Amino acid sequence: MKYIAGIPENDKKRVVIIGGGFAGLQLAKSLKNSNFQIVLIDKNNYHQFQPLFYQVATAGLEPSAISFPLRKAFQNQKHIHFRIAALEKVEAESNLILTDIGAIEYDYLVLAIGADTNYFENKNIQQKAIPMKSLSEAINLRNVILSNFEKALNETDKTKVASLLNFVIVGGGPTGTELAGALAEMKKNILPKDYPELDFSKMKVYLLEAAGKVLNGYSEVSSKKGKKYLEKLGVKVLTDTFVKDYDGKKVLLATGETLDTDTLIWAAGVKGNPANGLSTESVGRGGRLMVDAHNLVQNHANVYAIGDIALMKTEKFENGHPQVAQVAIQQASLLAKNLKRKEKGQALKAFKYLDKGSLATIGRNLAVADLPFMSFQGFAAWLLWLFVHLMSILGVKNRLFVFINWTWSYFTYDQSLRLLINPKVDSKQTKLFEDSSVIKNN
Amino acid sequence: MKYIAGIPENDKKRVVIIGGGFAGLQLAKSLKNSNFQIVLIDKNNYHQFQPLFYQVATAGLEPSAISFPLRKAFQNQKHIHFRIAALEKVEAESNLILTDIGAIEYDYLVLAIGADTNYFENKNIQQKAIPMKSLSEAINLRNVILSNFEKALNETDKTKVASLLNFVIVGGGPTGTELAGALAEMKKNILPKDYPELDFSKMKVYLLEAAGKVLNGYSEVSSKKGKKYLEKLGVKVLTDTFVKDYDGKKVLLATGETLDTDTLIWAAGVKGNPANGLSTESVGRGGRLMVDAHNLVQNHANVYAIGDIALMKTEKFENGHPQVAQVAIQQASLLAKNLKRKEKGQALKAFKYLDKGSLATIGRNLAVADLPFMSFQGFAAWLLWLFVHLMSILGVKNRLFVFINWTWSYFTYDQSLRLLINPKVDSKQTKLFEDSSVIKNN
Repeated sequence: MKYIAGIPENDKKRVVIIGGGFAGLQLAKSLKNSNFQIVLIDKNNYHQFQPLFYQVATAGLEPSAISFPLRKAFQNQKHIHFRIAALEKVEAESNLILTDIGAIEYDYLVLAIGADTNYFENKNIQQKAIPMKSLSEAINLRNVILSNFEKALNETDKTKVASLLNFVIVGGGPTGTELAGALAEMKKNILPKDYPELDFSKMKVYLLEAAGKVLNGYSEVSSKKGKKYLEKLGVKVLTDTFVKDYDGKKVLLATGETLDTDTLIWAAGVKGNPANGLSTESVGRGGRLMVDAHNLVQNHANVYAIGDIALMKTEKFENGHPQVAQVAIQQASLLAKNLKRKEKGQALKAFKYLDKGSLATIGRNLAVADLPFMSFQGFAAWLLWLFVHLMSILGVKNRLFVFINWTWSYFTYDQSLRLLINPKVDSKQTKLFEDSSVIKNN
Repeated sequence: MKYIAGIPENDKKRVVIIGGGFAGLQLAKSLKNSNFQIVLIDKNNYHQFQPLFYQVATAGLEPSAISFPLRKAFQNQKHIHFRIAALEKVEAESNLILTDIGAIEYDYLVLAIGADTNYFENKNIQQKAIPMKSLSEAINLRNVILSNFEKALNETDKTKVASLLNFVIVGGGPTGTELAGALAEMKKNILPKDYPELDFSKMKVYLLEAAGKVLNGYSEVSSKKGKKYLEKLGVKVLTDTFVKDYDGKKVLLATGETLDTDTLIWAAGVKGNPANGLSTESVGRGGRLMVDAHNLVQNHANVYAIGDIALMKTEKFENGHPQVAQVAIQQASLLAKNLKRKEKGQALKAFKYLDKGSLATIGRNLAVADLPFMSFQGFAAWLLWLFVHLMSILGVKNRLFVFINWTWSYFTYDQSLRLLINPKVDSKQTKLFEDSSVIKNN
């Protein structure tokens, strides 16, 4: 077995963290000044700011503005070792993980592997629908959206044009809602200027939700206002609407009705990423790993799970906590403390989620805010949303760039990122991928 | 034959422009308020600012900062029709071009198709070396450079590590020189912080040039200072050095000596992009199209060529003008005037190149400037370089972002764009490409 090169064996206990999302990054940062050796592993070399994927997909923000190089977070830190790698298997009985760049032993393993799109076993939808759960997927969605208009220009068949201009989003959670709003605003403010040859009265944005309301889980008034704002922007909101199938051209609803579209965007649910090798009895609802109040995975002695992947059942959260950044960050901070306490032989503290509230923005000046003791909507909620998201973005420069971008778009009603930068699939590009596989085979 | 949809037939004469680079974009803009119908075709939906590709490749600038959506340049202009398409053939006898989205007739055809990397018929080098003649290629180069360090971390064989850390750039023109300088500065200021586990004294940057000096074509003093600056930054400059072959691991020089590197960057020359269907007798040195003083292609009555693709021989420029932005822009501006004059039956004006000078930056505070009546180097040249490039970037917002980026990097000695955003080659990505081919087959 080949071990990951360059990570020294020393007398420090080793914490291996899988995943550099909100949970994994926060944990590594909180352990910066600890006595542990930290190994952080992620498939990418950057942290992604998920809440703003929809703005990348709708050409509002540059991918780099919402991603942050993980190495930069740990510059000059010699006891933190970051590696680009994918987890292949956990061998818990030998305190070992296998990755595509080699194996590594751990004293503590922390799984912060997050969740991915859930297609609920529908193969057709999985193949034909478009997800938005990573930065690459958001860039891909942007390319698909812009390509549709370019294709529509060259199309004379009116049915085909309509199908290209229709966008059907499935899932009325914050992701689907924010994306639908952003698409509707593109239709209103930008697309007619860019494509004077197309008739945008033919463009339709649908938001389909299986439940009886959008923004389920938000306050009653926020959910209602959210729907109202969407409709104000021209989004066709269909609640109690269940999607049965999609063949790349036609969406089949449970009622037997169909919708014609070339673009079905799937934001209907997530499931935990699999951690191969762990006891299957540890896996609960939605593919999440069942953990105790200290985020220790059931049936394991030194394997922890935090963030979206963790399923911690409490009286208040019978099906686990909401899969949002705040939970991930709070669990990570507590786990850092608990690991240190454990080393000192001190008692561990149980996790208690401090819900700071929920926000969702639908469009210009239109957002909803549910705070612990109050709920409000409209311009004030929108300002709060801007402020909270701006402050959460990693890196002063990223924050500055997002701020300028937003201010610019607000006053000009324009966005300037409508670039179809397709990956170049030629010998040179392939070279890179071949090279990557070289790492795997070493 | 299928014609490109949506472009109306009317009594206006139609100018078809192929290529949205400096030449094509300038021509379309200069014809904005003319009585022509304009059809602009490019393979991408954005204009690329070539002079700064090297900063994208070395993680200094964001791709979007140096690209500009072509549609945005012509918003609300109903007589300008932009299409993403690739030229397949010119059928000059029928005043027709064939593209991958259909055919289109023209009254005037303007080829502004530019130049691509010239491998001088060496298949090995073409396959294994890395070019930097488009934005996608610059992004790809950035990915390759960053991947090398990630791979080096997982490598225990010292020879392999050395080969990953060595960068060999071929071509001592401004592109190769600026890239070599930028890589050397990354080595100095950023990489050791990001990769404390690697020994950067082992990293080498080579610049190989077949001629006797770098920055050939610049003044003697600029060329000498350029070399001095490069060496000051630690670049190994080898002049009179001809590369014979490369197998992906070893560069073979004409002397029989070899250099070990995983990364050979090829900036040794360009050749004109082919315009299928034109008289082969019109093609001259370097694959460029031979034109008269009005940029009319030889042996053709209404086909023009401007910019890098045009070969206009004059007393001063026996082998054609330098392939730089200034020539392209000036030829485009004049051609716009000449087309209007021609319609009015007025005499055409002959092209005369006004050389405003040449600049090249090697690093922080280090640049060379050759102006018509003076030549200077160092900090003042560097400031001039910054100013000229900033002012040449299209779009006020792009300009602002580049300015902030440069200022930020200058004071922090840092860049924050070290993101390995790999194109996601999965079913969803493939979907996009399949869809693109649908356009072609229509």
